[in-house]
Amino acid sequence: MLKLYCAPNSIAVGAVALLNEGVHWEPIRLNLKEGEQTGAAYLAVNEKGRVPTLITPEGPLTEIGAILEYLGETALPQFVPADPLHRARMRELMYYLASTMHVNHAHRFRGRRWASAQAALDDMAATVPETMTASCAYLEPRITGPYLLGPEPTLADFYLYPISTWLEGDGVDLAAFPNLVAWKAGMEARASVQKLLADGFVG
Amino acid sequence: MLKLYCAPNSIAVGAVALLNEGVHWEPIRLNLKEGEQTGAAYLAVNEKGRVPTLITPEGPLTEIGAILEYLGETALPQFVPADPLHRARMRELMYYLASTMHVNHAHRFRGRRWASAQAALDDMAATVPETMTASCAYLEPRITGPYLLGPEPTLADFYLYPISTWLEGDGVDLAAFPNLVAWKAGMEARASVQKLLADGFVG
Repeated sequence: MLKLYCAPNSIAVGAVALLNEGVHWEPIRLNLKEGEQTGAAYLAVNEKGRVPTLITPEGPLTEIGAILEYLGETALPQFVPADPLHRARMRELMYYLASTMHVNHAHRFRGRRWASAQAALDDMAATVPETMTASCAYLEPRITGPYLLGPEPTLADFYLYPISTWLEGDGVDLAAFPNLVAWKAGMEARASVQKLLADGFVG
Repeated sequence: MLKLYCAPNSIAVGAVALLNEGVHWEPIRLNLKEGEQTGAAYLAVNEKGRVPTLITPEGPLTEIGAILEYLGETALPQFVPADPLHRARMRELMYYLASTMHVNHAHRFRGRRWASAQAALDDMAATVPETMTASCAYLEPRITGPYLLGPEPTLADFYLYPISTWLEGDGVDLAAFPNLVAWKAGMEARASVQKLLADGFVG
């Protein structure tokens, strides 16, 4: 059985949602507030000290984008578009989330990755409402509805879901992004997301 | 014919290298020092104001990871491993480069994305040698040789190539990373990389 090292309110929740779509799996929850992700036991699994890590039959696999692709290819092909350009559009969104939007958010609490003075950390945190609002503005006209890329969800929807739960805390005024709000409600109507909400993975 | 908006010494050089492996294509060079990537003409192509953008028959495609995957699927399948777990390992590296290593580097010159005070920008830039050295230390034992994931190059090798040309400028002591140095020399022996060097895409 697949196991996923994960934590509430982290990007790992995207993998939780996708696994809940029809994979037999088991969570191994880490307490990020107590620093379990950088403890020796977990570093032996994933030396990067971040979640998620998927334990596959061939060993640990890290990076949420790679985990979603692996699950799509091996278990849940309905979330990977058949058309090459449609698949490229899915990956364009996924890499945007990886390289830009998640990184923007990380400057709120994880600034020590890139600087050390408290004033620099405060400057980074103060900039997050602006950068996350810009990321929402990039996404908003691209959400064709009900899902990101049309009538059916793809891996990119699962990647964005945890990020969408951070926006109010990041200081984004969601009233400006009705497509995004409607998309999030649509995701939260799915049984997979209902289950993770009931299991305490958000909030 | 495919066209690629690109610039020397940018992450777009990874797409240049891959295209040089056997695709009929044409570069459209942007001068990043003169800010062409944020000029109105280019923003109409890619509102993110970054390179690369690949002009496909169906329109512009952005994000280096998505572009490499698209080229692998549509033109150069020899760089996409057939085995699902091997493909997952390739993507694990690609998402690491997207979410962590390229981001670490960007704090040297692009700190204004995430903060505004000069002291914060200086703090970020001063931290780059440490974060880029840590990224090299993560990669070093994973380079099985001659390529990242074994005897044949994959998309991940092309993604890493431009980043590997930034390391000395980022303050990394390459003497500590012999696998990485040997890997880079192997890439630079390929005709595709020889051509981009001759065409002035590095240096």
